[in-house]
Amino acid sequence: MTDLPTPALLLDLDALEHNIATMIDMAAGAGIGLRPHGKSHKSPQIARILTEMGAKGTCCATLAELEGFAAEDLPGLLLTAPIATGEQIARLGALHARGADVMVVADNPDIVPALSRIAGDRPLPVLVDCDVGQHRTGVADADAAEALARAITDAPGLTYAGVQAYWGHLQQVPDVTDRHARVKEAARMLAAILDRLSAAGLPAGIVTGGGTGTFGIDRHLGLFTELQPGSFLVLDSLYGPLAIEADGTNPFRYALFVRAAVVSTNPRGNLAPQVTINAGLKAFATDSGLPRLATDRPGTTFRYMGDEHGALTQPDNQPFKLGEEVDLIPSHCDPTVNLYPCYHLLRGGRLEGSWAITGRY
Amino acid sequence: MTDLPTPALLLDLDALEHNIATMIDMAAGAGIGLRPHGKSHKSPQIARILTEMGAKGTCCATLAELEGFAAEDLPGLLLTAPIATGEQIARLGALHARGADVMVVADNPDIVPALSRIAGDRPLPVLVDCDVGQHRTGVADADAAEALARAITDAPGLTYAGVQAYWGHLQQVPDVTDRHARVKEAARMLAAILDRLSAAGLPAGIVTGGGTGTFGIDRHLGLFTELQPGSFLVLDSLYGPLAIEADGTNPFRYALFVRAAVVSTNPRGNLAPQVTINAGLKAFATDSGLPRLATDRPGTTFRYMGDEHGALTQPDNQPFKLGEEVDLIPSHCDPTVNLYPCYHLLRGGRLEGSWAITGRY
Repeated sequence: MTDLPTPALLLDLDALEHNIATMIDMAAGAGIGLRPHGKSHKSPQIARILTEMGAKGTCCATLAELEGFAAEDLPGLLLTAPIATGEQIARLGALHARGADVMVVADNPDIVPALSRIAGDRPLPVLVDCDVGQHRTGVADADAAEALARAITDAPGLTYAGVQAYWGHLQQVPDVTDRHARVKEAARMLAAILDRLSAAGLPAGIVTGGGTGTFGIDRHLGLFTELQPGSFLVLDSLYGPLAIEADGTNPFRYALFVRAAVVSTNPRGNLAPQVTINAGLKAFATDSGLPRLATDRPGTTFRYMGDEHGALTQPDNQPFKLGEEVDLIPSHCDPTVNLYPCYHLLRGGRLEGSWAITGRY
Repeated sequence: MTDLPTPALLLDLDALEHNIATMIDMAAGAGIGLRPHGKSHKSPQIARILTEMGAKGTCCATLAELEGFAAEDLPGLLLTAPIATGEQIARLGALHARGADVMVVADNPDIVPALSRIAGDRPLPVLVDCDVGQHRTGVADADAAEALARAITDAPGLTYAGVQAYWGHLQQVPDVTDRHARVKEAARMLAAILDRLSAAGLPAGIVTGGGTGTFGIDRHLGLFTELQPGSFLVLDSLYGPLAIEADGTNPFRYALFVRAAVVSTNPRGNLAPQVTINAGLKAFATDSGLPRLATDRPGTTFRYMGDEHGALTQPDNQPFKLGEEVDLIPSHCDPTVNLYPCYHLLRGGRLEGSWAITGRY
């Protein structure tokens, strides 16, 4: 019993530090840079640890994340999603004007004049976002990449900083051999774009992309200068069983848990014995399957029982008791982190303080 | 273009007021009380409007909601979920000690001594939570209800206030005739419990339960003294098409929207024309299907493109433009509201201020 207000988000610092050290070593071994994605952790403290251990900076998916990290004077911020509205341009302009160390991506020449206007006297680095198969953002092909790189180069106040290419659609391809093969295919598209840009006298300085699921191959492609993984920091029940390395291993550990409390233990009609916990649809991201129990109670399964509750089947031995705390591994870390105001920190299984989660909507 | 930071949660006050007035009238017409559920809206302003228009108070699903509403001195708060841990008892005790107008439910005699201890000199009203088929919380049968009612009655400091019976499993039964028939079946369980309690000299003062999906029958059963609907306030794409009344009608209107911006309009390989918006898995609850476009653009569908993005297929006429704002109807209102810090208020289609969302985790 920890007296935490449940449901609570827990971060195991021992596992986090293992994951960070492992990633730093693996990237260094491959001679590649890291700018891990802050959309996963939304924590200035984690971003600080990573940069102090050698990461080039922190990626952000939203302006709110960018503002949160910039408020803590974190270096090397990269906004990995294109922006388009006047409100977004104005917010980016305000950050740039007050000296934040920010780069952005663009995928449309129409946005270049607006970026140029907010740059002012201080160069704003802009990368060309390239669609390499996910079909979410990015220019469609090498022609469009060249045209956009040239528009950025020609725009007063902007620095053409390189290329982003993220194969998000390949991160969770179940079989690692298949996943790596498909990355090699997508990498040919990226290589063609990079060749074209070089031939046009617009060689990419930075080449950034990649994620946790494809890190095992991304770092060996010889295309990227730096990578953007994020989920490796804490894992989840989606990435946990996923092989990362070509040999079928996953060197990272679970560091993120939701702690809930058993609030009802009554018999339930003809159902197999179960208990009700105070963590439901509001306590977990629900897009990628069910959370699973972290504690070792074989045979116990979770199901949702509405917005604020879930049910755990009672194991044959060691049944759950009224008021007992249980820890669950979320199925998808990024949107689960987004549900909580802070991480409660675990060190050697004991609670020690908390870290704020910044840049929620 | 409204210059709102997107994604943003919008509340249409005209539709909200229509829904509130409609519900108040329908309840009054049936001679039944209302204590609408604050788990849906998490807004002290909405709770205040409801109580000023005659609601008995506000239901809460969590202690955080209870604390948020109590901080605004809202009357008639009812915690509809049993609590069990020392931390929960202590928080409830603190609220009770500072004079909050709070009732709670219990479903286990083991928790009665702890509730009795925090009551002190000021009576704490406690209702017996009864399982009428959802199998989430509540006592299993009339025997257990009688035993718990007696334990509450006998405990110093506690007032036995009545019974809660919520058929959450019936709220979204698709066919309204089938739904109402199943409610009548579950109502027989509730009637048997109420008869038993009366026969035992423990008649229920308050009989509370029901929800938006079953309101069409709940208010005519002659069992409840008050009802707890919440989703009717704003609807969602789950409840919107659901008939509420026996004649197949739904008298409520959509009042809740997520506003997003079009951030990428490039061609996407061989895909049908689509645009990318900045609202994804972090912007909507994903447990109950997809959000749908509120704006009238026939044939346009939404799909998720990761944590921060979604795609909208381009309609044949009136294609989306880069930077354009679009409004979507969430598929599940309660956990979507929980994702945002505030409602941006619409009046006659124009923005006017915002209301905080309180009691998120």
